[in-house]
Amino acid sequence: MKVKKDNNLPKTPTGVSGLDEITNGGFPKGRPILICGSAGCGKTLFGIQFLVKGATEFNEPGVFLSFEESLNDLSQNVKSLGFDLAKLMAEKKLRIDHVHIERTEIEETGEYDLEGLFIRLNYAIDAIGAKRVVLDTIESLFSGMNNLALLRSEIRRLFQWLKEKGVTAIITGERGEKSLTRQGLEEYVSDCVILLDFRVIDQIATRRLRIVKYRGSTHGTNEYPFLIDETGISVIPVTSLSSSHTLAAKA
Amino acid sequence: MKVKKDNNLPKTPTGVSGLDEITNGGFPKGRPILICGSAGCGKTLFGIQFLVKGATEFNEPGVFLSFEESLNDLSQNVKSLGFDLAKLMAEKKLRIDHVHIERTEIEETGEYDLEGLFIRLNYAIDAIGAKRVVLDTIESLFSGMNNLALLRSEIRRLFQWLKEKGVTAIITGERGEKSLTRQGLEEYVSDCVILLDFRVIDQIATRRLRIVKYRGSTHGTNEYPFLIDETGISVIPVTSLSSSHTLAAKA
Amino acid sequence: MKVKKDNNLPKTPTGVSGLDEITNGGFPKGRPILICGSAGCGKTLFGIQFLVKGATEFNEPGVFLSFEESLNDLSQNVKSLGFDLAKLMAEKKLRIDHVHIERTEIEETGEYDLEGLFIRLNYAIDAIGAKRVVLDTIESLFSGMNNLALLRSEIRRLFQWLKEKGVTAIITGERGEKSLTRQGLEEYVSDCVILLDFRVIDQIATRRLRIVKYRGSTHGTNEYPFLIDETGISVIPVTSLSSSHTLAAKA
Amino acid sequence: MKVKKDNNLPKTPTGVSGLDEITNGGFPKGRPILICGSAGCGKTLFGIQFLVKGATEFNEPGVFLSFEESLNDLSQNVKSLGFDLAKLMAEKKLRIDHVHIERTEIEETGEYDLEGLFIRLNYAIDAIGAKRVVLDTIESLFSGMNNLALLRSEIRRLFQWLKEKGVTAIITGERGEKSLTRQGLEEYVSDCVILLDFRVIDQIATRRLRIVKYRGSTHGTNEYPFLIDETGISVIPVTSLSSSHTLAAKA
Amino acid sequence: MKVKKDNNLPKTPTGVSGLDEITNGGFPKGRPILICGSAGCGKTLFGIQFLVKGATEFNEPGVFLSFEESLNDLSQNVKSLGFDLAKLMAEKKLRIDHVHIERTEIEETGEYDLEGLFIRLNYAIDAIGAKRVVLDTIESLFSGMNNLALLRSEIRRLFQWLKEKGVTAIITGERGEKSLTRQGLEEYVSDCVILLDFRVIDQIATRRLRIVKYRGSTHGTNEYPFLIDETGISVIPVTSLSSSHTLAAKA
Amino acid sequence: MKVKKDNNLPKTPTGVSGLDEITNGGFPKGRPILICGSAGCGKTLFGIQFLVKGATEFNEPGVFLSFEESLNDLSQNVKSLGFDLAKLMAEKKLRIDHVHIERTEIEETGEYDLEGLFIRLNYAIDAIGAKRVVLDTIESLFSGMNNLALLRSEIRRLFQWLKEKGVTAIITGERGEKSLTRQGLEEYVSDCVILLDFRVIDQIATRRLRIVKYRGSTHGTNEYPFLIDETGISVIPVTSLSSSHTLAAKA
Repeated sequence: MKVKKDNNLPKTPTGVSGLDEITNGGFPKGRPILICGSAGCGKTLFGIQFLVKGATEFNEPGVFLSFEESLNDLSQNVKSLGFDLAKLMAEKKLRIDHVHIERTEIEETGEYDLEGLFIRLNYAIDAIGAKRVVLDTIESLFSGMNNLALLRSEIRRLFQWLKEKGVTAIITGERGEKSLTRQGLEEYVSDCVILLDFRVIDQIATRRLRIVKYRGSTHGTNEYPFLIDETGISVIPVTSLSSSHTLAAKA
Repeated sequence: MKVKKDNNLPKTPTGVSGLDEITNGGFPKGRPILICGSAGCGKTLFGIQFLVKGATEFNEPGVFLSFEESLNDLSQNVKSLGFDLAKLMAEKKLRIDHVHIERTEIEETGEYDLEGLFIRLNYAIDAIGAKRVVLDTIESLFSGMNNLALLRSEIRRLFQWLKEKGVTAIITGERGEKSLTRQGLEEYVSDCVILLDFRVIDQIATRRLRIVKYRGSTHGTNEYPFLIDETGISVIPVTSLSSSHTLAAKA
Repeated sequence: MKVKKDNNLPKTPTGVSGLDEITNGGFPKGRPILICGSAGCGKTLFGIQFLVKGATEFNEPGVFLSFEESLNDLSQNVKSLGFDLAKLMAEKKLRIDHVHIERTEIEETGEYDLEGLFIRLNYAIDAIGAKRVVLDTIESLFSGMNNLALLRSEIRRLFQWLKEKGVTAIITGERGEKSLTRQGLEEYVSDCVILLDFRVIDQIATRRLRIVKYRGSTHGTNEYPFLIDETGISVIPVTSLSSSHTLAAKA
Repeated sequence: MKVKKDNNLPKTPTGVSGLDEITNGGFPKGRPILICGSAGCGKTLFGIQFLVKGATEFNEPGVFLSFEESLNDLSQNVKSLGFDLAKLMAEKKLRIDHVHIERTEIEETGEYDLEGLFIRLNYAIDAIGAKRVVLDTIESLFSGMNNLALLRSEIRRLFQWLKEKGVTAIITGERGEKSLTRQGLEEYVSDCVILLDFRVIDQIATRRLRIVKYRGSTHGTNEYPFLIDETGISVIPVTSLSSSHTLAAKA
Repeated sequence: MKVKKDNNLPKTPTGVSGLDEITNGGFPKGRPILICGSAGCGKTLFGIQFLVKGATEFNEPGVFLSFEESLNDLSQNVKSLGFDLAKLMAEKKLRIDHVHIERTEIEETGEYDLEGLFIRLNYAIDAIGAKRVVLDTIESLFSGMNNLALLRSEIRRLFQWLKEKGVTAIITGERGEKSLTRQGLEEYVSDCVILLDFRVIDQIATRRLRIVKYRGSTHGTNEYPFLIDETGISVIPVTSLSSSHTLAAKA
Repeated sequence: MKVKKDNNLPKTPTGVSGLDEITNGGFPKGRPILICGSAGCGKTLFGIQFLVKGATEFNEPGVFLSFEESLNDLSQNVKSLGFDLAKLMAEKKLRIDHVHIERTEIEETGEYDLEGLFIRLNYAIDAIGAKRVVLDTIESLFSGMNNLALLRSEIRRLFQWLKEKGVTAIITGERGEKSLTRQGLEEYVSDCVILLDFRVIDQIATRRLRIVKYRGSTHGTNEYPFLIDETGISVIPVTSLSSSHTLAAKA
């Protein structure tokens, strides 16, 4: 499979070996991408690699907004991959912001106030001229909301803000019971949706990646195996029998 | 499969290659059509193509009411298909209206006030003499409603308004867990229902289209493969073994 | 399969080719029959055909109470079948009443007041001496009710009224997730239940009809294929291997 | 399979051909039996036959408490089976009581007051010296109750009353989604539970009966085919390969 | 399979033929055991047999706390097994206490007050120096509780009381939809859990027993067939291919 | 499979034979590990063994916080494994704290106050200089919480406290219906997740262990059989065909 650039939609390399081929050139520049999957599928690592490769290979500084792991934990977890987060931070190529959501911040309706997040994120982006953002995870923001109409409106507001800021953003999302995401809404609002799957069949585990949706670009639509080893995540862009593509405006 | 016009029910070409054959002449003129499917299935692209082809080939101007994507995003996403939305808009053959539903507009019951939408849509239709309308997506309007009786009544009111306005309208809907649509109501109220399916079997993805319902017209009832490539969506009207037709008043 | 009249239970022809054989003479005269199935299965067409055939072939005028489609839409949808609703209406053999349930009519509990319906229906029946009634659909009346005890009581009240009025009535119902009907109650209260199924297996669609229940009459119990073509609905009363019958008082 | 009387538990013939063999002598005399199954399975017919045979062959008069069907409907529905309900009623061997539960009787909690039922039932039983009772259906009484603890207590109260009155009682119950009955409680409280199944496999329908539970008696535990024909219900007590029995105190 | 006594955990014979082998010596002395299964699986009979055998063969008097069946019914149901409950009661080897939970006892939250039960149970145990207790069923106590945290706390309190009293107690529980028990909590709190299964495969019914959990003891982990015949329940301790054991502190 | 130490992430031996190989050196030192599985899978035994081996072989004293079992029960349950809890406690190598959560402690919202737990746990850890902690089970703390946002925040707070205290902690969790844990949240917040499975296939039971997630370390990803015998739990690190590893920062 050869990488075939779509001229009209600006793209940015994913930093994940093999994935630029499948996406015909990478992620949509300046748009939010949803990476979803169950616990242990590699969502956070995907986000870190996207930022590290962006900072070191493509001159795109990045901001990591962590709701789950501390800076220390994150650094330690990726050290064996040769990712030196501290060094990148010192060079102003990376900024990691660990957000503690206090109980008191969650109002009675379980809602988190997005405005505060925007101020914080804006400051972090401007401080290093970030072109990439990772928000890990969307459930940390919205898991307490029950009104689906409000939730949809808030997700849209977050995505819109990221678009207006001009950053290419990865938002991680936890797998839902019967839909891609927990609430089953995020995948509809997103421009680009990647599903990471970590399946066990007959006692053997395999990891597969699927591009569920990519507005404005052709892309491979099948499930592709991927590995997590000492160099990080890499996708195997197997050219299978049927390789129907899509050039979807939106789905 | 030869296109066999039903003389009694006025139809309008779908703009999707192969689909006019399966529908025996296209969509029901002046009626709402429901296009449903999961994230990434091609719903929005289907709607755009319906409008672009209508405007350029059948002299039917169209209005796109977008709740999800901005004009810029929509334009960029379909540029590679050769769809020049800006040009069509300048020629008054297309009108794209991006509706932001503000949180404050969603009342406590999660309801959106249809009256405001009607005024806005009416203005847009009259401004260019539109014959076609796309409303993307119905969930943006009704996802907050819990009372099924009220929801049914509101969907009917929307569909009725569109019929009275005389436009052929595509309404996109997100796939439900156990029914065609999220609420499982829209397919009953609609005159014509198309299901877009994006299935992965043994790691290989395939797209299939099915006409679930078409009041007042015979139509192919099987599942037909469809492609999304650089020319847009095209359906393959395979004449399979069994091709039972239907001439249903309503189901 | 030969039509074998049950002498004790008065019956009336269904107007659907093949179905009188399976039901041993038609529907139970003067009783309500539930026709259920998913969107696109042919419920409304079934109802219309029941009335048109009743009016033209069996001298039984009929009333169609539509909650979904307007008179114009209904007429247009069945024109190609050779059903001229306007002519039948002019001849006082058919009466179509399109009921708009306004939001304000739905009270807080989501309940529709049956009394108003009875007055309206009574008037329509008496006006043409109707022997047949179609009520399309039951969900339009009761979808907002959550108290199952009240719902059961209301359905019974409706069915009782129809029986006392002496009309043979078809009530259409939408398919439920895990039961025949949405609420899973109607099939228990009904004297006769027909299920219309519109299944897709290996991309090929087939329509099947099944008599789930017929109090007081033997009937074919298997699934029978049916067609919807230019002459309307017709059932193929295939005599299969096992054809157990039933003479059930009630189930 | 030979009928083997359990000496200790008094039994009464079921009136259903073949079933006395499977139950080793019939139903437990003076206890309530739950007959459950989906719409169309033959529950009501089972109940009527139990009473008619009891009255005509075993000198046990019976009371039928109907919440669904009127006396006229019931009579008409079983006439072809040679069951003359009117004659039996005139001979004081049968009493049919059609209970209309009015909306106003259902209180806010959806509860039906059992005391009124007891008075009515008591009167009916004493009037003809009934030994058998059929209550069709239990859902008519309790479908509005949501508190499982109260529901359990009310079902127990009903069953206890019937036991104290010394009648052998059939209570019909509608099939639940994931349990034998709608509420999934009745089968635990009952002494004897019969499941009537009406399955469609490969378009062919078959009826099967299973004794799920029979406190105090051995019984066949397999699924047995049964027929509904012009003589009523008859079970085929096929001696299959494995015929484990049970002598359960309670399950 | 030879019975291999675990020296450290005091055990008491189950009274069920074959089960002492599988449990390596019987039930854990002085601890509560949960017996769960669907309606008709043999739970109550299991409990009665445990008490009768305890009283007659192992010199351990027992108390049966029945929420469902009366003393008369229980006696009659097990008479054919040669269990003479009245005699055992007269000899003070058995005490049967039928608890009627009155509606008024169930408070608004649906909770039953355990304190009253403890007083009653304490009196019954002391009266005959009982070593064994059967509580049939746990749902009778807790089915009205919705707060899972409170429910867990109450179940623990009941189990704790039984442990402190030093009796070996069987608590029966009804099968849940997706977990072993209705609430899915009891199996976690219990020291020993036995599942009785009554499955129908291809019309043939089979009974199987499985030791889901046994804290502090090795045990057979497979599913073992069991019979209910004129001698009561007996398990067939088939030594199958794989017979992994467990010596679990708690699971 | 050879044990390959990851130099960057400090690890501590699991005390479970075979598991250090699969985890490339043991559990992440100073981080919380989630052990989840259904009733009877061996969760508690796993925790006890982790502490006993830590205390006796690796000089790491441990604290066991039990919400379910008393000290006596725990001691007795593991005596046959040669684990002498009393001796270890006397030597100040182990401390077992049985926490009774009183009804009154559970507030109306069903929440347990973490602060009290921290004080208690802190005291226990400092008293013996504990390096290891087991918390059995997480459901005891949070099962009453319904607000997912608050629950997530509380779980994070608990895990954060444990990390700051510098102990390697095992938290046991009960299996959920459709997710690894009851609430489906814990596995996302945890750094390391182990699933214990106790499956019955064709009447034969097998135990399998799977490392669902291990932030910062390569690990075997397949399902590995494990045994519970007289020496405790041991995993069989079978090198199967496919042995994809993962070096995930977080998933």
